[in-house]
Amino acid sequence: MPGGDTPFVTLLTDFGADGPWAGAMKAVLWSIQPAFRIIDVSHSVAPHDIFGGAFMLYRTYKDYPSWTIHLCVVDPGVGGPRRPILAVIDDHYFIGPDNGLFSFLYQFGEVSRVIAITADHYFRRPVSETFHGRDVFAPIAGWVSKGIDLTRFGEPVEDYVKIPVPVDRLVGESLVKGEICAIDRFGNLITNVRLETLRLLAEQSGKRRFKVLVAGQEAPLVTGGYGQEQPLFALVNSSNLVEIACNGRSAAEALGLTTRGKEVGVMGV
Amino acid sequence: MPGGDTPFVTLLTDFGADGPWAGAMKAVLWSIQPAFRIIDVSHSVAPHDIFGGAFMLYRTYKDYPSWTIHLCVVDPGVGGPRRPILAVIDDHYFIGPDNGLFSFLYQFGEVSRVIAITADHYFRRPVSETFHGRDVFAPIAGWVSKGIDLTRFGEPVEDYVKIPVPVDRLVGESLVKGEICAIDRFGNLITNVRLETLRLLAEQSGKRRFKVLVAGQEAPLVTGGYGQEQPLFALVNSSNLVEIACNGRSAAEALGLTTRGKEVGVMGV
Amino acid sequence: MPGGDTPFVTLLTDFGADGPWAGAMKAVLWSIQPAFRIIDVSHSVAPHDIFGGAFMLYRTYKDYPSWTIHLCVVDPGVGGPRRPILAVIDDHYFIGPDNGLFSFLYQFGEVSRVIAITADHYFRRPVSETFHGRDVFAPIAGWVSKGIDLTRFGEPVEDYVKIPVPVDRLVGESLVKGEICAIDRFGNLITNVRLETLRLLAEQSGKRRFKVLVAGQEAPLVTGGYGQEQPLFALVNSSNLVEIACNGRSAAEALGLTTRGKEVGVMGV
Repeated sequence: MPGGDTPFVTLLTDFGADGPWAGAMKAVLWSIQPAFRIIDVSHSVAPHDIFGGAFMLYRTYKDYPSWTIHLCVVDPGVGGPRRPILAVIDDHYFIGPDNGLFSFLYQFGEVSRVIAITADHYFRRPVSETFHGRDVFAPIAGWVSKGIDLTRFGEPVEDYVKIPVPVDRLVGESLVKGEICAIDRFGNLITNVRLETLRLLAEQSGKRRFKVLVAGQEAPLVTGGYGQEQPLFALVNSSNLVEIACNGRSAAEALGLTTRGKEVGVMGV
Repeated sequence: MPGGDTPFVTLLTDFGADGPWAGAMKAVLWSIQPAFRIIDVSHSVAPHDIFGGAFMLYRTYKDYPSWTIHLCVVDPGVGGPRRPILAVIDDHYFIGPDNGLFSFLYQFGEVSRVIAITADHYFRRPVSETFHGRDVFAPIAGWVSKGIDLTRFGEPVEDYVKIPVPVDRLVGESLVKGEICAIDRFGNLITNVRLETLRLLAEQSGKRRFKVLVAGQEAPLVTGGYGQEQPLFALVNSSNLVEIACNGRSAAEALGLTTRGKEVGVMGV
Repeated sequence: MPGGDTPFVTLLTDFGADGPWAGAMKAVLWSIQPAFRIIDVSHSVAPHDIFGGAFMLYRTYKDYPSWTIHLCVVDPGVGGPRRPILAVIDDHYFIGPDNGLFSFLYQFGEVSRVIAITADHYFRRPVSETFHGRDVFAPIAGWVSKGIDLTRFGEPVEDYVKIPVPVDRLVGESLVKGEICAIDRFGNLITNVRLETLRLLAEQSGKRRFKVLVAGQEAPLVTGGYGQEQPLFALVNSSNLVEIACNGRSAAEALGLTTRGKEVGVMGV
């Protein structure tokens, strides 16, 4: 059984923290697999915000053990023609609608296979047209945890849906370009700039200290956490991504940012 | 043991998602019954909104296995004379205050028995006057899961409290009248019109296609989920209730509705 | 093993109910200790509000069985010099940053020992600078539950950080002074006045009935829960603290209070 005697399953949805849908999914999960350790990643993805869900999944899936099953439901097209899929990426399972929700993983992870789920005898009956989280995805997660051979759920596909994903990149030898992909509860600005890209920048530029350019301001890249002297700074966060923060204050507010998408640059000092 | 080796218990309260009360109830539940699978249905019923809690319970309890124990606490009268009750309806257990919280179930379910809980030796000691969720209802849920004979908790009663519940109804042969009973996170309008009433309408009227009349507008009843061409439409949702929705937008906003209670009609086209 | 076969661990943080951080902590907890019963106390402490977290912890920890492990992360200084600590107080474990988060417990509980955690071979590797909840505190909680001798985590310390904690006190023989320390979801005002201080007041003053003075108004101390006749009243809540409430309405609103800190008095009538 994947995960040994303690299979993990996570839930990431746009259903809202107020219920009642996540509970219905858990009922299905535990009915099939009583040993599941069920973990809510978030139910607060903005309604229908596929990009937001995709980025949150990307920055958190490695917090879970290998062979964790990630049940992801941001699914505006539920009940329509979009396919349910099961992806195996970086030794994790991902189950959800084929609408681009796994795009960051396709971009940055090692995709072993993506299966279009067609074996509807595994579904909960009858299948509603509005809640495949309960009727399609949760049952499949349960059966995957039971060790059912993945080929029995459907055929591998190559034409799975990808949404545009911003990729951090080295421009010349001295600049990394990226963008703000999320704003967290504390007002910290989470970018798509990866630690490994910073390492490449260090190598190419010969620099050892860096600053982040954002919204016309400069934030030095520091170590030592959020308790800094300077008002605006940047650090490498717990997902190994560059994050812009303020000491004791919301960086989003300080910079007048309310939405993601703003470009950032990183260069040596 | 009800539920076999994996007894399910759900929590539905108006305590808020911010804690800390639900946690205290879980501590009691697991102290008595370590095997419990505890599922949060919602803690975001509006404070003291018995109707809101009752309708949410009604539309979600069938998502859980038979003999699930539903622990429901919307309890403005806690510490006063209102009774704690234990109801067996449609092969599910419901535990909570006798204030009408189970009224939709009394109306639409098969009520096996309702017991006024008096066996206070099962309670947590001392019993506070403000938190029977922890001190009365959670312990009873624990002991019910242990297979204690229900007669030991108290006497059956017939005079349990019912609040007025709007019942969808066929008017003549060609119209079903109902009302909006909840607005969800996506702005979808959830009515009390049941699939079975629609079937009756189809039978009586000979029609096969229907529309919903709401707030002076018409919403065709469609299949295929939320990804529709037309701006306003209706569908049968995952609780088998008619729901009014907009494509990519809040129907509540589109119709200028902010509260439940609005009447709707369904008729053939 | 502390807690026998069913070790309890609670989470109290300022991470927000929207995720994804609490999930990452649970993954670590269950990876080390699959038998954990994990309970979310709250993730909605206001960002960086150490006092708010400390008071919530104080009023709820006794809802859990002895030897529960309380994982508490309100940690503005994460990644800086502040120490991680493990405290044993009133036969409960508390793990978190040494920033005063346990101050109410130091004040009112029986402190057995406080250990500054230095045994970093128990940490998750690599240790990030921004998320010790996942990398330091959760692993320690896991290993504590395994029965590792506490001395192996680090040395006992006496100089742990305390923030100022308001202590309710008898002034003369006829007045107790306290203050509002939290406002709950229902608008109830939770004070720091303890039941035991009320008992002392009763003894000293010879009175049997009391009233609470707050914001220029008087609230009689009543029994019988929230369903009272009078508009403003006070009661002893489920944490054995005096709480000011309104019948069917927010007391905070009624009194025009939006923040904690307001002084209250209790005297005989």
